[in-house]
Amino acid sequence: MIVVMKAHATEEEIQAVVRMVEDLDYKAHVISGIERSVVACVGDERGAKHQLTHLESVAGVERVMPVVKSFKLASREVRPEGSTIRIGNAEIGGKRLAVIAGPCAIESEAQIEAAADAVKAAGAHMLRGGAFKPRTSPYSFQGMEGEGLVLLEKAGRRVGLPVVTEIMDPHDIDLVVEHADVLQVGARNAQNFSLLRRLGRTNKPILLKRGMSTKLEEFMMAAEYILSEGNPNVILCERGIRTFETATRNTLDLNAVPLLKEWSHLPVVVDPSHGTGIYSLVAPMALAAIAAGADGLLIEVHPKPESALSDGPQQLKPARFANLMKALKPLAEAVGRTI
Amino acid sequence: MIVVMKAHATEEEIQAVVRMVEDLDYKAHVISGIERSVVACVGDERGAKHQLTHLESVAGVERVMPVVKSFKLASREVRPEGSTIRIGNAEIGGKRLAVIAGPCAIESEAQIEAAADAVKAAGAHMLRGGAFKPRTSPYSFQGMEGEGLVLLEKAGRRVGLPVVTEIMDPHDIDLVVEHADVLQVGARNAQNFSLLRRLGRTNKPILLKRGMSTKLEEFMMAAEYILSEGNPNVILCERGIRTFETATRNTLDLNAVPLLKEWSHLPVVVDPSHGTGIYSLVAPMALAAIAAGADGLLIEVHPKPESALSDGPQQLKPARFANLMKALKPLAEAVGRTI
Amino acid sequence: MIVVMKAHATEEEIQAVVRMVEDLDYKAHVISGIERSVVACVGDERGAKHQLTHLESVAGVERVMPVVKSFKLASREVRPEGSTIRIGNAEIGGKRLAVIAGPCAIESEAQIEAAADAVKAAGAHMLRGGAFKPRTSPYSFQGMEGEGLVLLEKAGRRVGLPVVTEIMDPHDIDLVVEHADVLQVGARNAQNFSLLRRLGRTNKPILLKRGMSTKLEEFMMAAEYILSEGNPNVILCERGIRTFETATRNTLDLNAVPLLKEWSHLPVVVDPSHGTGIYSLVAPMALAAIAAGADGLLIEVHPKPESALSDGPQQLKPARFANLMKALKPLAEAVGRTI
Amino acid sequence: MIVVMKAHATEEEIQAVVRMVEDLDYKAHVISGIERSVVACVGDERGAKHQLTHLESVAGVERVMPVVKSFKLASREVRPEGSTIRIGNAEIGGKRLAVIAGPCAIESEAQIEAAADAVKAAGAHMLRGGAFKPRTSPYSFQGMEGEGLVLLEKAGRRVGLPVVTEIMDPHDIDLVVEHADVLQVGARNAQNFSLLRRLGRTNKPILLKRGMSTKLEEFMMAAEYILSEGNPNVILCERGIRTFETATRNTLDLNAVPLLKEWSHLPVVVDPSHGTGIYSLVAPMALAAIAAGADGLLIEVHPKPESALSDGPQQLKPARFANLMKALKPLAEAVGRTI
Repeated sequence: MIVVMKAHATEEEIQAVVRMVEDLDYKAHVISGIERSVVACVGDERGAKHQLTHLESVAGVERVMPVVKSFKLASREVRPEGSTIRIGNAEIGGKRLAVIAGPCAIESEAQIEAAADAVKAAGAHMLRGGAFKPRTSPYSFQGMEGEGLVLLEKAGRRVGLPVVTEIMDPHDIDLVVEHADVLQVGARNAQNFSLLRRLGRTNKPILLKRGMSTKLEEFMMAAEYILSEGNPNVILCERGIRTFETATRNTLDLNAVPLLKEWSHLPVVVDPSHGTGIYSLVAPMALAAIAAGADGLLIEVHPKPESALSDGPQQLKPARFANLMKALKPLAEAVGRTI
Repeated sequence: MIVVMKAHATEEEIQAVVRMVEDLDYKAHVISGIERSVVACVGDERGAKHQLTHLESVAGVERVMPVVKSFKLASREVRPEGSTIRIGNAEIGGKRLAVIAGPCAIESEAQIEAAADAVKAAGAHMLRGGAFKPRTSPYSFQGMEGEGLVLLEKAGRRVGLPVVTEIMDPHDIDLVVEHADVLQVGARNAQNFSLLRRLGRTNKPILLKRGMSTKLEEFMMAAEYILSEGNPNVILCERGIRTFETATRNTLDLNAVPLLKEWSHLPVVVDPSHGTGIYSLVAPMALAAIAAGADGLLIEVHPKPESALSDGPQQLKPARFANLMKALKPLAEAVGRTI
Repeated sequence: MIVVMKAHATEEEIQAVVRMVEDLDYKAHVISGIERSVVACVGDERGAKHQLTHLESVAGVERVMPVVKSFKLASREVRPEGSTIRIGNAEIGGKRLAVIAGPCAIESEAQIEAAADAVKAAGAHMLRGGAFKPRTSPYSFQGMEGEGLVLLEKAGRRVGLPVVTEIMDPHDIDLVVEHADVLQVGARNAQNFSLLRRLGRTNKPILLKRGMSTKLEEFMMAAEYILSEGNPNVILCERGIRTFETATRNTLDLNAVPLLKEWSHLPVVVDPSHGTGIYSLVAPMALAAIAAGADGLLIEVHPKPESALSDGPQQLKPARFANLMKALKPLAEAVGRTI
Repeated sequence: MIVVMKAHATEEEIQAVVRMVEDLDYKAHVISGIERSVVACVGDERGAKHQLTHLESVAGVERVMPVVKSFKLASREVRPEGSTIRIGNAEIGGKRLAVIAGPCAIESEAQIEAAADAVKAAGAHMLRGGAFKPRTSPYSFQGMEGEGLVLLEKAGRRVGLPVVTEIMDPHDIDLVVEHADVLQVGARNAQNFSLLRRLGRTNKPILLKRGMSTKLEEFMMAAEYILSEGNPNVILCERGIRTFETATRNTLDLNAVPLLKEWSHLPVVVDPSHGTGIYSLVAPMALAAIAAGADGLLIEVHPKPESALSDGPQQLKPARFANLMKALKPLAEAVGRTI
């Protein structure tokens, strides 16, 4: 931590800061500059009871600046070679890319079965489908819930694909764990710390979506909540952030991909469906995600998007998805991956 | 809903849209423009099974634009005179302003008792304090939990102030309902719909904070989740949004105050402590909030902010808070309110 | 400057940084932490040829963090009592608030004369009107240009109010200087450094609007461009920033008001017309701006907004403006100002 | 245009809107909904003197929604096959990708000559270098100006590459036109309409950067300013937008690439150097840009970034740039392009 003193801080104020810092088990070094002094504090910033930011309310202090990032278990330093997570026959984080595809919401047995056939035929590695849907309006379709989970599991087993589904309520964890292979945390719950803690106590891989306004360092800390409870299998998912731009539903932040890969050993996947909200942009942004270094993709595919109960505009028709899978092959090879 | 067709949409495509729209119980009016046609759809946009946005994946369609706002129960049309919520001796939404004050987190009996005395002496109407703290890092102080609730309730009763505290986990609802007079939903849970639904089934007023990236229309819909479950007592709280500006912790969006008052009958309060993150800005922004039409304030007050376990830089010392309360009096009168 | 080294930086890398820093006339202090070292660099950060940020490309360096703000002449330290700028009979920055009002664009002699009468009658201190209009579309009305300037000056003289108008092109400076009392720089030119430098060589006060995505520190630096060329009369204007919120045209960032007043001796005014884009929000936000400590307001008033050639939705009718002026009086007194 | 009336608008109010709309040469269709009426206005939205938005201040009107995008000349409909711009031996917008590389700022003859050699050797198609630098601080290095232009031209001629440089001040246009092959407009001038108009009257291709907070539709309108003055050669450049994320200098918005290619016939290039601000992210984001469909890249390359006078952290060393050029080859082929 670096405590920056005000330009006119007195010697007494500086010494008071030194005492407070040392009381908190840091070592303090005062450096007198031309215009102001700073107090460099040496200690375990992440372990200390205090992060020292409260010193900003101490007389004479202008600012407190942290020096180190606050994540530990999610940090690449922990596992420089990167983590690979196995899910049934599929694998995420290795040389081979993982494509997770399926409808936004499970709407009926016929729909999820048709979707399962389509994504399997095109070469996807996992099947996704929402049973519990976080909808902005309480009056919108909220998902088929338990019944949907059963249908999803059945469809996945039939075509031989592990299944991924969203969990919103801690109350449903046991139910979802029973039916799904990967539990997804949606953007709106990216900082629902109660939910994250509880998921850290399950033994299923967690696909953690970045929140709409979650900074990358906060995103790492959200993963840290899960990891610190004992579940090592977290997959980070960039799905677009909220910005001033309204031409797209979200702004897919692909900068996040190489940066998260630098910072963390965890696999990183990208969801260009939510990231753009427009079906015609899904394929180019899926290719871009892989070129940027993503380990996989989350793609919404619906047998008939024009009658979808949610997120119609961003779901691909099976034929478009099959074309995307074909286009991914040479691109994956160009960046040293397989699919 | 207005369905905007592409410039080169064919007559067949237009007619297909008309049929789909009518199948969903809307009436369709085709209007042929100079360059393109639009299909105006008349029906209950909020009640219909579909919001029609999935039509954006239909051939020939460019865009689907909703015409009406999607909130109902939170709308001012429901209660043009506005809602006033009674909480013990306090009241929020009437002519008299409500000031809710206290520390960010309950840290000890001595601390919450000192805070209770200070805010009561200065004229606050309710006491706040966090027992469950949503912290970015799992390694930061997470609150005193159940023990903190007991201390908060005791301190509030002693000084005669109703108490407000945050609820994060549905699992804790019964416990929090037992000890608190108002349940607060924090910014990170503003779209935790499972939690909102469950709070809609309690009989306690809910202080709902806007999320860091929640649009005002989505904020209204979050309130709608609570209202639609039967709990009519929702207090909306503007607490700053996340923008590119880093000089302040958040960007307090006071535009929200008059706009929410126009749209909704619910009371609106403002939290300038989180909204700025800097103690010296709290008082001017508290005054500004009242001038903009807010019904009350949420102010963090700590007997000793320089040793606070969380959010030190934004908490007021008792003397500063007392000064703010004095400054609020003439300002409230200038805008036709009392305090 | 604080140079944060990577966790595994070698002693050679640290020493190389020390040499580079000392070559640039800073003194270097190495502080060895538990996990990594930092090099604290003492020197004139603002005067040095280099701001040292290029060190981020040096081997072993993780990050370079500036310690001081980079503005000098705009800083409050230069004139702790604050600056008051005289413009004809008006004054901005003192105890008395300054209200600048008038139409978005000058559209005709009749219109600007009617506007001048209305704002004078209601008690405004200056008349504003745009002759050169920065419009998003080249096909929109671009202003009456030179002819508009003449009409504005004439109307202002007749009613006895100094006039304020926008300058967009350095080429027009002489012309605008001839007719206007204050030159306004619009949000889109907030970082048009060529224009700012040239305005720094005029002897007219400059009303500098914050850009849509200008951080407050950058805003101060934009003022610094003008000040450093010799023109001491800069008025800072908060007019709303661009955020994800679409319910209002911009997000008026009133946090900026007390923060700029803390940082700078320059007067600060607020434009709630652009800041909200909605006429019904202009009055509450004008009151809020004054409560937050603004020295004045910029209000768009049009004799007939429903036929305005630009920005109709945010312009006040004369009667509404007169009501606002009445409401401002007690509010100004409540915060120790006059109007 | 769709004029949405308020829920309780009277029949008189609706008829008044109809009259106003028809006075402006639109045809009005009233559609009575369940809750409110809308007035659909048929006419040339882009050509009409008014865009009708001023109707939002008319009694009974809630909102005015445009139906069509406002760009014309930049629209893909004008040239569905896309535009290819020739610049000396180079070409931008065709099958072959164009890579523009060179230092952020021209610092000396030795530096620009070394950079020219390096980028030529690695296979770049154009040489870039800044002579006029838009710096946040007036105290930072502002570029070598005229002298730098001469050095850039000389270096480019020697290695046989066209040169690209930024223009900030209309006053310098003749000078820059004399020395450069492509004139670049920087992000801070993206809506400097005076400059854009003047550049529209030159005969040099314009590389137009998106502003930090410019919406894509506004970006198209900025291009429209140039095109409407008669210069058809505009190259759109995505260079990152300003968001809440601080881990990267900007948020490179690659969604913009396929969307601009859909909307417009103009070539689109990407600047991953400014888009990320971190040299280690430049290569992955360059690859991603091409995968997303960009026609070219703008890459900052400096012979010695650790001593650069500006933007050191984001400039590539020659060896890294050469590696990137090698990596681009198979990737370009994978998406059907050459380099």
